[in-house]
Amino acid sequence: MDEMTNNRMFMKCPDLSDDGTKSDQELKLPQPPLEKAAVGEIIELPAFENAVRTTAYTDLLDNRRSGRAYSDMPATGEQLAFMLWSVQGVQAIRGANRYASLRPVPSGGARHPFEVYAAVLNVEGLKPGIYHYLPLEHVGEKRVSVEFTAPLDNAGDTITDMLAGQSWAAKAPFTLFFSCLPYRGEWRYREMAHRVMLIDLGHAGQNAMLSAAALGLTSCCCAAYDAARCDEVLGLDGLHEYTVYAVTVGQESQKAAEN
Amino acid sequence: MDEMTNNRMFMKCPDLSDDGTKSDQELKLPQPPLEKAAVGEIIELPAFENAVRTTAYTDLLDNRRSGRAYSDMPATGEQLAFMLWSVQGVQAIRGANRYASLRPVPSGGARHPFEVYAAVLNVEGLKPGIYHYLPLEHVGEKRVSVEFTAPLDNAGDTITDMLAGQSWAAKAPFTLFFSCLPYRGEWRYREMAHRVMLIDLGHAGQNAMLSAAALGLTSCCCAAYDAARCDEVLGLDGLHEYTVYAVTVGQESQKAAEN
Repeated sequence: MDEMTNNRMFMKCPDLSDDGTKSDQELKLPQPPLEKAAVGEIIELPAFENAVRTTAYTDLLDNRRSGRAYSDMPATGEQLAFMLWSVQGVQAIRGANRYASLRPVPSGGARHPFEVYAAVLNVEGLKPGIYHYLPLEHVGEKRVSVEFTAPLDNAGDTITDMLAGQSWAAKAPFTLFFSCLPYRGEWRYREMAHRVMLIDLGHAGQNAMLSAAALGLTSCCCAAYDAARCDEVLGLDGLHEYTVYAVTVGQESQKAAEN
Repeated sequence: MDEMTNNRMFMKCPDLSDDGTKSDQELKLPQPPLEKAAVGEIIELPAFENAVRTTAYTDLLDNRRSGRAYSDMPATGEQLAFMLWSVQGVQAIRGANRYASLRPVPSGGARHPFEVYAAVLNVEGLKPGIYHYLPLEHVGEKRVSVEFTAPLDNAGDTITDMLAGQSWAAKAPFTLFFSCLPYRGEWRYREMAHRVMLIDLGHAGQNAMLSAAALGLTSCCCAAYDAARCDEVLGLDGLHEYTVYAVTVGQESQKAAEN
């Protein structure tokens, strides 16, 4: 089968009839952790309740547009916190052995196979660097803590490299990077997990865009990125955890807003 | 490379360096149409402006949960219309030769490779059947027209079959089915299109879930379905157009709501 045909087939739900192959879940192997454990300095971001400017969902549907031209205005810690919470916050944990986390986005089998990193260039109160979101620090609360994982040198150039030369991204005050830990999905769904995880990624991306609009900001979901460079900067091994999506966030430049 | 490794790699952005291969867009081949043309009876659904009950986005983030237990209450045409518009409505068309459509969800390269079908079981004013959404009938307007494409016999059993035996879906008053027309993406992105289209599918799925919550309904995004049976019922050839996702929608049963 050629690559194009193979890729078309990859998009379809495969034959679900029982072929006798058991998932690791069915084999009673331990469930992978809900969150990658923090090892660095943990920072609690400011509460975000008052950061939202546009509250009406129907207005967000009318107004959300991808935006790639940003002003020089820094983002606030509240804005970053709201973005992180709305894409992956943990609202509750259910089941024996912490089986499932409930979040503002659905995930097939409640596997939630992603971690979120913010590459901070210009956010009030935070030094430039990579920050890893820790949703289990505040289950059921509207609070956000992050782990500082690495400084970001030559931040604009680094972001441009990570996004495969998209130099406009260097002006975004922060960019969210989603990683996937594929075993979280494979544990339950084996080779069927990956299609579902890509769809789940879009659930989170849509919330990111709507949330940016709710904050009065604009954003751009980026499926084009330099996978090796992203993994290197984020400190991921590229096999058990690897970059899958990026969302730039910032205030739209006046010039772009007038167009 | 084994299937698991191959699938993991499929989730990553591939090497974007120029290998000299040109896309059909670069070869100046004609862009595929933005919408699959209607051939059947066109029906305009009721205006949906007053159908939304919960307007605050932050409330939707708090309250959206996947729901699989539905009451016997029929859905309204307004509710169906809002669901269709919010996942794929066309707000504007831009560029020479109708290059790009702007919708409430982003799509890589503005390709929007999906069509949406509603399998109607119990919607006021509509006979049971398959209805194809026609977003180009009302560009920039909050109006929704659909094309009746086929009756739905033994509707509950048919939906259960389409969703690979998930019999709870037979109580949903309607289910949205997303199809993909892969060439819409391939025209621009070649073999890189399919990963991006799966992510785009999630953008639409998230809007579906938020919109159902905004209507006071519940919904469930279903990545598990019988691909051949869905294509057969929806009248898709399985190659140039095939089913990729389903979203059941309905009022939550009282019993489920109390849990």
